[in-house]
Amino acid sequence: MNPDILRERQNATFDIEKLTNILDGGAERTNRRREIRELVGSCKGLLTNILQRGHSRLPTMILKLREYGISDPVEINWYKSMYWGTGREALGLHYVMFLPTLYTQCDSEQFNKWVPLIIGTYAQTEMGHGTHLRGLETTATFDPATQEFVMHSPTVTSIKWWPGGLGKTSNHAIVLAQLYTQGKCHGLNAFIVPLRSMGTHMPLPGIVIGDIGPKFGFDAVDNGYLKLEHVRIPRENMLMKYAQVKPDGSYVKPLSSKLTYGTMVFIRSLIVGNAGIVLSQCCTIAIRYSAVRHQSEIRAGEAEPQILDYQTQQHKLFPLLATAYAFLFAGQYMIDTYNRISGDINQGDLSEMPELHALSAGLKAFTTWTANTGIEVCRMSCGGHGYSRSSALPDIYVEFTPSCTYEGENTVMMLQTARFLMKSYRQVQAGQQLSGAVSYLNKVHHRVMAPQAVSSQLDLNLNTLVDLYEIRAAMLVELAAQSIQQESARGKCQEDSWNNSTIDLVRASDAHCHYMVLKMFRDKVDQIEDPGVHSVMSTLAHLYAIHGMGNFTGDFLQAGVLTGAQVPSVSKCLKGLLAEVRPSAVLLVDAFDHHDKMLNSVLGRHDGNVYEAMFEWARSSPLNRTEVHESFHKHLKPLQAKL
Amino acid sequence: MNPDILRERQNATFDIEKLTNILDGGAERTNRRREIRELVGSCKGLLTNILQRGHSRLPTMILKLREYGISDPVEINWYKSMYWGTGREALGLHYVMFLPTLYTQCDSEQFNKWVPLIIGTYAQTEMGHGTHLRGLETTATFDPATQEFVMHSPTVTSIKWWPGGLGKTSNHAIVLAQLYTQGKCHGLNAFIVPLRSMGTHMPLPGIVIGDIGPKFGFDAVDNGYLKLEHVRIPRENMLMKYAQVKPDGSYVKPLSSKLTYGTMVFIRSLIVGNAGIVLSQCCTIAIRYSAVRHQSEIRAGEAEPQILDYQTQQHKLFPLLATAYAFLFAGQYMIDTYNRISGDINQGDLSEMPELHALSAGLKAFTTWTANTGIEVCRMSCGGHGYSRSSALPDIYVEFTPSCTYEGENTVMMLQTARFLMKSYRQVQAGQQLSGAVSYLNKVHHRVMAPQAVSSQLDLNLNTLVDLYEIRAAMLVELAAQSIQQESARGKCQEDSWNNSTIDLVRASDAHCHYMVLKMFRDKVDQIEDPGVHSVMSTLAHLYAIHGMGNFTGDFLQAGVLTGAQVPSVSKCLKGLLAEVRPSAVLLVDAFDHHDKMLNSVLGRHDGNVYEAMFEWARSSPLNRTEVHESFHKHLKPLQAKL
Repeated sequence: MNPDILRERQNATFDIEKLTNILDGGAERTNRRREIRELVGSCKGLLTNILQRGHSRLPTMILKLREYGISDPVEINWYKSMYWGTGREALGLHYVMFLPTLYTQCDSEQFNKWVPLIIGTYAQTEMGHGTHLRGLETTATFDPATQEFVMHSPTVTSIKWWPGGLGKTSNHAIVLAQLYTQGKCHGLNAFIVPLRSMGTHMPLPGIVIGDIGPKFGFDAVDNGYLKLEHVRIPRENMLMKYAQVKPDGSYVKPLSSKLTYGTMVFIRSLIVGNAGIVLSQCCTIAIRYSAVRHQSEIRAGEAEPQILDYQTQQHKLFPLLATAYAFLFAGQYMIDTYNRISGDINQGDLSEMPELHALSAGLKAFTTWTANTGIEVCRMSCGGHGYSRSSALPDIYVEFTPSCTYEGENTVMMLQTARFLMKSYRQVQAGQQLSGAVSYLNKVHHRVMAPQAVSSQLDLNLNTLVDLYEIRAAMLVELAAQSIQQESARGKCQEDSWNNSTIDLVRASDAHCHYMVLKMFRDKVDQIEDPGVHSVMSTLAHLYAIHGMGNFTGDFLQAGVLTGAQVPSVSKCLKGLLAEVRPSAVLLVDAFDHHDKMLNSVLGRHDGNVYEAMFEWARSSPLNRTEVHESFHKHLKPLQAKL
Repeated sequence: MNPDILRERQNATFDIEKLTNILDGGAERTNRRREIRELVGSCKGLLTNILQRGHSRLPTMILKLREYGISDPVEINWYKSMYWGTGREALGLHYVMFLPTLYTQCDSEQFNKWVPLIIGTYAQTEMGHGTHLRGLETTATFDPATQEFVMHSPTVTSIKWWPGGLGKTSNHAIVLAQLYTQGKCHGLNAFIVPLRSMGTHMPLPGIVIGDIGPKFGFDAVDNGYLKLEHVRIPRENMLMKYAQVKPDGSYVKPLSSKLTYGTMVFIRSLIVGNAGIVLSQCCTIAIRYSAVRHQSEIRAGEAEPQILDYQTQQHKLFPLLATAYAFLFAGQYMIDTYNRISGDINQGDLSEMPELHALSAGLKAFTTWTANTGIEVCRMSCGGHGYSRSSALPDIYVEFTPSCTYEGENTVMMLQTARFLMKSYRQVQAGQQLSGAVSYLNKVHHRVMAPQAVSSQLDLNLNTLVDLYEIRAAMLVELAAQSIQQESARGKCQEDSWNNSTIDLVRASDAHCHYMVLKMFRDKVDQIEDPGVHSVMSTLAHLYAIHGMGNFTGDFLQAGVLTGAQVPSVSKCLKGLLAEVRPSAVLLVDAFDHHDKMLNSVLGRHDGNVYEAMFEWARSSPLNRTEVHESFHKHLKPLQAKL
């Protein structure tokens, strides 16, 4: 082991394994995760990310999952992500959207018929329409004479676009389309459409299908397009668990239109946790490398220090380390809440659905934006080597960044949360008492939170900071509401008033999410009993809060909970926390328990032997198979002759 | 032409061509640029970015440059960037670093000997050492007995790493190495090292060379490694224009060690302008697409609006549009200043060098960081389609992002500027009167800029804003200096005091650069005589200033030039400016004059016919050459049989 990184692991102030257990949700879960990791083995390749490779490895995975009897969704997810590592597979949507949708929306007869047979994808987005589902143009028109639906893409913009695995892999798709029956449109419904012949895999009549071309990463996924030309499917191919079309063409409404959003809420909750996982991977890579890399000098004449000793490097990485923990805990909270509320929903209680929907939308945006930026900060903190794919960081970025757009475009998500916040604010104004996540808005009404002079002695402990974030969120919610009111007062219609306030609304949602994540972090830390772990996690939560305060000083000054003269104290507190985290930094990333063969990063190696590994990796690069590249003879030599 | 984008181009309030001329530096220059564009033709391919392709197109370019007699460096740069578009070539460093270095540092005999013969690269960075040049480990030891230098890589970390074209393309390199002669180290010097046989292109004895493996983009560049094993080169291969080693081994020092940094300063100045160009490309793509894309609804029941009408979309794109103009003007300023000061330097006057060096370092970091983030904001503002390489945005990102690291890592650059600011601050404290860019610090000393209560009537005109940015910069310079002083007072040594203040120092540099860019923008606008162009550019400069104020409200509140109660006015002013820019947005990107065939973006098409072009692009994607991909027969079919 590299002596620098060895030294970092001596004199730990806390039990790493205990922290890992907290992240997994118990020692038993940690063991099970490691068991699955062992099952996966180390069959992952390094570089080639092509479709063929995706397909060739798929059968192995499916058969292994069967053989090992892994069927719990979370465990399947572990196995999958360990198996594919940072390389996405063509069948992502099959597992993430296609099967869950079938599971939720098929009746049992449909489920038994379809699931074993097919490789499917989920075709919702169209070339001209993404997040705004009502705008989708694909039609499904019921023909009672033949008991069929006619599926059709009426325009160029209505062509289904982007679904993963649609282009070349899938033989069926769940297609979202506007349902027309008895001359009336009943909005979006889901239909199973056969795409390719089960024997020859050739596209069926009326199906114009293919790959949408090269993308930012995801070389192994054949994202596809699908143009439907009056394709007929049997009535039974509509997913009918909630809405139904009877043989005579009459339409039976679903119990609640919100039910169909369940899958979406679940996926968004998963994305929140995934943002934490991805950040934790990047922090592992960047912090381990920073402990090994020596550069420049702090004191003249002395040896080059580890770059982790530079304050600027700590300032880049440690707040992200704290954020990774914050998002992992937020992800746990979301899944737990989803499971709890889902139970209620199955019993017909939909009362908590709006809050969960709003929270999952906002947190999805908040965490993915933050992680997206954070990945690149980690990558660039590794200097030139962060650009090499041997670091794994470029692949992590191109695979993560789409989560800012898919499953609900982030700005739209923030505005959905804002809609909930504005509704809550109006309820408070109307004298209602709110409960749940937005209960802090009750105080706005009672004027408890009006900007007030702060005490001259600045108190920056964690619980006070949670209160200050609450005040900040309440202020920004109120300012957004006031902006809407002012626009209305200037004679704008309701919709224009909303649009002209969306900058403020996004800020309000952002502040609400920031407050929620900090609160979840603090609450989690409060539950930790082990003193060593509790202490280091308190420091991280504190750092998370103080760093955010430094980034949004303006809001806290504007809210009157901080004075200009106190700002340097915040900065001093931040520097103190960075220094406090420094000795535990490598241990804190070790606790994420990312195994080398999963992380697949030369820079992030557990043993810190970075340079030797990098040279070896380079020497085995494809271009080095020959000493003289064929293009020398083809192009360079003739060029030299001409010069 | 798409009717939406046609409508955007009607009723222009200014003459686009006049604005284009201002960007080019005169109507004549615009014409020349277009002439060269015509010469380039449209031979650019769409997708394949491999080394072979780079090499195959190279001879054409070199011969064409000769045929057309293009020799002015700026014009060569135009031709090159138009010829390669968003695809980097293997010989980038040959033109950008190798030839200029030869030109500056060879004597004329050396120049005539080397230039026609070879394909070269510039090998500075080592696996273990980047920006900190003194840390480089490669040695060049003079052996007077044979009149040779022995070039050697003593460790793994000393292996040259990253130079573009080093792996497979170049037959020579300029190698930076620590010069040893007569038993003494004289620091870094540059040497021409033959790498490969001129006939067979095989590596020469003692040369271990190859490609460093796949990277984030840059598939067509063979970035390489070079391990030197006691390689002997003649004494004449040292570049001797400044420093020299005599036949007896005695060392002649260069006139000034700063001289060798000239190339670096020049390149950093080019990078500033390039950040503007790249942002202008991204804004062109995102704004044109946003004028064509319709989505969701503002008013219920009405047609889906252009997404450019959403305030959140304007808030993402228009400040970046203003920033693109700001950086283009800053780039002009830097090159003009460089040319002026270079003239002085050739006449032995080095007095302005430190200020130019500091400014180029800071602005390089400031503009590349901002543009780097901005590219991704533009990309994500295009929703899903921004992830398709048909948008050109992913390629622009992977090609631009290295500029945050190469030619001086950005954080290190900011700290170089900070060193200059601290030195200037100390001079003011010692009673000196400063001139040039930092003259605003004179006022700090005279306490003119101490935080002061603002007038109740908030004045946000452009000239006032420039003053407020000046006050902000002065405050942050002063706070950084105070942090260093406080650390010293706590007994820390000078170096630790510096390191413990680097967060503040980076912020101070950032604020200084922000102020400088805004000032250059304002000064440029003041020179514009045409009333229509002047008016729209004033709005943009104003937007640039107000948007920055919104992002850094905390600083302005802390400086006491803004009160919490006034913050909503800043936000209102920002919204007003966004609405003011809206009608001219498409025209303002048209003025950048990026031709379709150079922009190479389906989303950024001048005619706005986005969707048809995207479908066509997708259908010609490599995976669509066959209806059924070969991997179906190889992998999927056997899988289905097993299930």
